[in-house]
Amino acid sequence: MADGASPLSLDGDPGAAESLLRSVFGMVVEEIVWKGTSASEKVCEWKEPEELRRLLDLELRAQGESQEQIVERCRAVIRYSVKTCHPHFFNQLFSGLDPHALAGRIVTESLNTSQYTYEIAPVFVLMEEEVLRKLRALLGWGAGDGVFCPGGSISNMYAMNLARYQRYPACKQRGLRALPPLALFTSQECHYSIQKGAAFLGLGTDSVRLVQADERGRMIPEDLERQISLAEAEGAVPFLVSATSGTTVLGAFDPLEAIADVCHRHGLWLHVDAAWGGSVLLSKTHRHLLAGIQRADSVAWNPHKLLTAGLQCSALLLRDTSNLLKHCHGAQASYLFQQDKFYDVALDTGDKVVQCGRRVDCLKLWLMWKAQGGQGLERRVDQAFALTRYLVEEMKKREGFELVMEPEFVNVCFWFVPPSLRGKQGDPDYSEKLAKVAPALKERMVKEGTMMVGYQPHRTRANFFRMIVANPALTPADMDFLLNELERLGQDL
Amino acid sequence: MADGASPLSLDGDPGAAESLLRSVFGMVVEEIVWKGTSASEKVCEWKEPEELRRLLDLELRAQGESQEQIVERCRAVIRYSVKTCHPHFFNQLFSGLDPHALAGRIVTESLNTSQYTYEIAPVFVLMEEEVLRKLRALLGWGAGDGVFCPGGSISNMYAMNLARYQRYPACKQRGLRALPPLALFTSQECHYSIQKGAAFLGLGTDSVRLVQADERGRMIPEDLERQISLAEAEGAVPFLVSATSGTTVLGAFDPLEAIADVCHRHGLWLHVDAAWGGSVLLSKTHRHLLAGIQRADSVAWNPHKLLTAGLQCSALLLRDTSNLLKHCHGAQASYLFQQDKFYDVALDTGDKVVQCGRRVDCLKLWLMWKAQGGQGLERRVDQAFALTRYLVEEMKKREGFELVMEPEFVNVCFWFVPPSLRGKQGDPDYSEKLAKVAPALKERMVKEGTMMVGYQPHRTRANFFRMIVANPALTPADMDFLLNELERLGQDL
Repeated sequence: MADGASPLSLDGDPGAAESLLRSVFGMVVEEIVWKGTSASEKVCEWKEPEELRRLLDLELRAQGESQEQIVERCRAVIRYSVKTCHPHFFNQLFSGLDPHALAGRIVTESLNTSQYTYEIAPVFVLMEEEVLRKLRALLGWGAGDGVFCPGGSISNMYAMNLARYQRYPACKQRGLRALPPLALFTSQECHYSIQKGAAFLGLGTDSVRLVQADERGRMIPEDLERQISLAEAEGAVPFLVSATSGTTVLGAFDPLEAIADVCHRHGLWLHVDAAWGGSVLLSKTHRHLLAGIQRADSVAWNPHKLLTAGLQCSALLLRDTSNLLKHCHGAQASYLFQQDKFYDVALDTGDKVVQCGRRVDCLKLWLMWKAQGGQGLERRVDQAFALTRYLVEEMKKREGFELVMEPEFVNVCFWFVPPSLRGKQGDPDYSEKLAKVAPALKERMVKEGTMMVGYQPHRTRANFFRMIVANPALTPADMDFLLNELERLGQDL
Repeated sequence: MADGASPLSLDGDPGAAESLLRSVFGMVVEEIVWKGTSASEKVCEWKEPEELRRLLDLELRAQGESQEQIVERCRAVIRYSVKTCHPHFFNQLFSGLDPHALAGRIVTESLNTSQYTYEIAPVFVLMEEEVLRKLRALLGWGAGDGVFCPGGSISNMYAMNLARYQRYPACKQRGLRALPPLALFTSQECHYSIQKGAAFLGLGTDSVRLVQADERGRMIPEDLERQISLAEAEGAVPFLVSATSGTTVLGAFDPLEAIADVCHRHGLWLHVDAAWGGSVLLSKTHRHLLAGIQRADSVAWNPHKLLTAGLQCSALLLRDTSNLLKHCHGAQASYLFQQDKFYDVALDTGDKVVQCGRRVDCLKLWLMWKAQGGQGLERRVDQAFALTRYLVEEMKKREGFELVMEPEFVNVCFWFVPPSLRGKQGDPDYSEKLAKVAPALKERMVKEGTMMVGYQPHRTRANFFRMIVANPALTPADMDFLLNELERLGQDL
């Protein structure tokens, strides 16, 4: 490099760029689209951190590398990464690979623009508007507003910020110290982002009042009513209820109609965290689980989960038509949102958000929807419910599988009771021993790379598996595999 | 579709997926990698919103579409999108196309995972650690912490939240009402995200005290000192100074050493918003612009800007070694951050952030760095400075171009004075007429699609152009083009 020219600058050389990109794209097709989705391949190739560090040679040096080396680096990255598109990756609320959505993501990355102005993102400003309109229509709203956020947690924070701003617009300028103490309400089964949001937004986690859930994980409206009275008696001002459609562990749906009644009585903003369950609205058969959602003031819905749009695709939807988003978040930066432009500056939607640069998250969903149609997406949702039912029935036929509860959604919570613990439910150390089973099985499945499924303790319950049936490519054979594999991995426990 | 099968479900059909992806990838290569970066092609193909809506046929319907239709939809999306990789896209702080970074983005999208646990993102947890370590080393820190955020605005908010939490840990639980009124300080040239962040975090925009900048846009330390005294006299508690390295419009660098002295005297957290200017640290020749940055407590740095890593790649870097990020943001969700895992759970870094799912933003930067080496990246930075110098000298040779000031960075702020206004500087309506020139020229260049460059008013100055020299593929010919094109577009004004 004595001449000062890097071997791989490629700047302004589209031929060399094409060659590199073709190599990497070919590898993606072979290693991810084919092998990554094949049941006969591994889900993951476990390495201890120290070994993986060595294998990856992560250090960033002064000297550049050759094109061949770069291609091999991509190969290593793919090899040691978990294949979340694999049919036996049951670990998260997202899984699978939708090729249309992936095509949309590749186009998005290649165009590399920011969603703030019509000037530099004309297609995506209009497309986001249309996608959000469609999602709102599924909520039952003929009008409203919305925006794609970097994840459901931030969508939930937006709802909190909008609710307090609507009630106390002076908050934006004068801050929370100018306000009375505020209280918001959510169930004990809510996503942890509500707590994180309350802390980040300066409300403090004490402002979050946890409402009791019933045995299935659904908020109890009577307890909500009671908690509101309690907060008021303590001098706090209730301003928001965050209900959940599809809780993270149990997959529970809060009773929205009853909760909306309470909100109506007390004049509270109703937010629905439907990050996980929102996609059920696409199914005529199952959308009753979200009955009442049209009464919400705001909804968080992540099509990157059940709809497989790809991380991240998270919509915050608003019933508001008064431009609350812009009033609440706007800062009128004159270098970006010039008012003397030659087109309608209402199309410069970037001032609605607290970000400046914002990724394009609409194309992947739009393209997938165009390809599948609403009918195709509905079929996916219905199929996930049907496969869940199949799994549950098969589980009941086998010794050693114990459901935590009959699932309402596609979360199947169950214990695998290994041979040594069967019939020992009465033993004093049963629960303690059972708690160790899921972590032990998880270690075995990951180290063999055959499958991934999550577990957790829950209230007084010992560690149990939370199986997620979301990947649209799943078949009954994959459900059978899960059961057989747990039996195989746990036969000596 | 009477048989219930969508023509394009493709679920579980890797052959069909490959075929679709190959078509779209081929189009990306042809339309973006080749034509999008060619100076002889258009930067954009302007359409009025109503016409564009019609051309795109955005509506999402119940029926799906054929593979051919989907491929044509991608073609339309690309056709009507702005080519931010084009050598005549001078409009934003990001531009250009780095093929290694794009390869990294394609792999990232294909692997589709979330950055929260070693369990599902082993490669990227270790890689993020290494990339952040490298960025910290360039700041002069041998240890510390950090995380990639969805954009510099959110990085800045993190800094605010960490600073207040460090001073008042009870804030997380009890909220801002339990605290005295807080004050933070930044210059009048700061990015608007400081205001947005103060509002979002519940501090209120009143808590932001704007410090005077000098004629070149640099914070005046003496005025900072004065503002701190003023805030204290008003009963507020100063807690944070946000300095800027590379302001958005003028490209100014605040004097960090002097500001750090003030912070040290008053015990204030020093945050440096180096979203734009941070990448200058790669250049031995120019890094003096950020002298003193090693004294910061936190730094926001966006390699998606000058380094062309792709949207978004935004690091928040911390000098802290006490795990402040996790203490401040952690919520210990038991379904995700199980403590009884079989590996070191310190690798589950997701609880450091306020997001839950978080995109992988490190691979694109890591891969580009591996390919270019630190030397290659340094050359890019030096070249951007050199081309800026070339442009400025050429500008001075031509009638009709008036610099707002000599640039310190790669922002070139200037007026194009059209023939009818030359020599009329003394006219009472000169400024009013000059203000209309940039918007008129912008309309012309966009409608012809030949070039894009931003403009804005600034304090008392009428609209001027802010030219950004960032794309690593730029040559002196592109600088000449800018000047010639403005002369051509403005000859009759």
